[in-house]
Amino acid sequence: MKQGKFIVIEGLEGAGKSTAINALLSELQKAGIANVINTREPGGTVLAEKMRALVKEEHEGEALQDTSELLLMYAARIQLVETVIKPALAKGHWVVGDRHDLSSQAYQGGGREIDLQTMSALKNIALKGFEPDLTLYLDIDPKVGLERARGRGELDRIERMDISFFERTRQRYLELASENPSIVVINAQQTIEQVQSDICAALQAWLRETKG
Amino acid sequence: MKQGKFIVIEGLEGAGKSTAINALLSELQKAGIANVINTREPGGTVLAEKMRALVKEEHEGEALQDTSELLLMYAARIQLVETVIKPALAKGHWVVGDRHDLSSQAYQGGGREIDLQTMSALKNIALKGFEPDLTLYLDIDPKVGLERARGRGELDRIERMDISFFERTRQRYLELASENPSIVVINAQQTIEQVQSDICAALQAWLRETKG
Repeated sequence: MKQGKFIVIEGLEGAGKSTAINALLSELQKAGIANVINTREPGGTVLAEKMRALVKEEHEGEALQDTSELLLMYAARIQLVETVIKPALAKGHWVVGDRHDLSSQAYQGGGREIDLQTMSALKNIALKGFEPDLTLYLDIDPKVGLERARGRGELDRIERMDISFFERTRQRYLELASENPSIVVINAQQTIEQVQSDICAALQAWLRETKG
Repeated sequence: MKQGKFIVIEGLEGAGKSTAINALLSELQKAGIANVINTREPGGTVLAEKMRALVKEEHEGEALQDTSELLLMYAARIQLVETVIKPALAKGHWVVGDRHDLSSQAYQGGGREIDLQTMSALKNIALKGFEPDLTLYLDIDPKVGLERARGRGELDRIERMDISFFERTRQRYLELASENPSIVVINAQQTIEQVQSDICAALQAWLRETKG
């Protein structure tokens, strides 16, 4: 059985991840890839969704410490990778993820400024070298993205951080994309049609390369 | 303001930790130490108790991965140390803990056989050198301890592990105690009176040393 592929969509709040995931799924279908599952992080398993609630909700005013938040993100990621993603890939299914490890690198490493040594040690402990095959990073100015996200309703604990947090997060996303050829940057400030077209082009180019 | 002290009681299920904590508290009162708080791990804050529930309970049959369990233990520990223990010590209060980091070293490192490099990296990331002033480890043969614990009612997820898990855990407790002079081993298979007397003697010896 040929191993499936793991494709991840990344980006700040309001970058258009949901729309991008739908475009990607329809493109994979056209390419004849029959078995595709969706995941979201943090979450995607019974335990990981409970961990997500610990990160996202308020807890009688108790401040979630930055390092605790990071450990919860990784605990949730381990549950998802080991119980959902790896078994699916092993069966030859493809997985499209709404966020994965790059979000921790950007939000906790960049945004919260947790040191690189801690980030790298935890990634190794939790993922032991497991990586997506392709990541599409939807790049957007956080001022534009947050304005879009605010239009959709209530913001959660992380989404209420100040703008400099998101600027550091975007900066780290761009730095990591520039170092890693499996991360493709998509300009998410274009029209929806143009973003979708760029996503399809990036996917097509990668599929040709993967098959070639 | 003089910093308070952090004393921890450790040991396997059925070793008699609750009785030991009561003996310790009464002895501290006799020694004229007025402000003493109790903690338990994992738990002791709103968030840490929710993390404890993730570790202890069943979640629709989903297996909690060993590394996820370890990360949850440390996330809970960070919440307790940063929001309860350190602020109490800074006010000059003493803290008596029902378990602390040595439990992770013994159960996850020894029992679950997570490698020493991972254990050491996580301890550094989470605790940054924070250590108890004194640890009393109640040593008991797991066959004897589990028999006592079973008499008290239902066993949780960890307590249902097989005997070799607890034997590895005890072994790691003893190894670490032999390397660290701030860990005192108490023979917990003696009569309650003898155990209490050993705890009082260990505390008195340590108080004399600390003041001297």
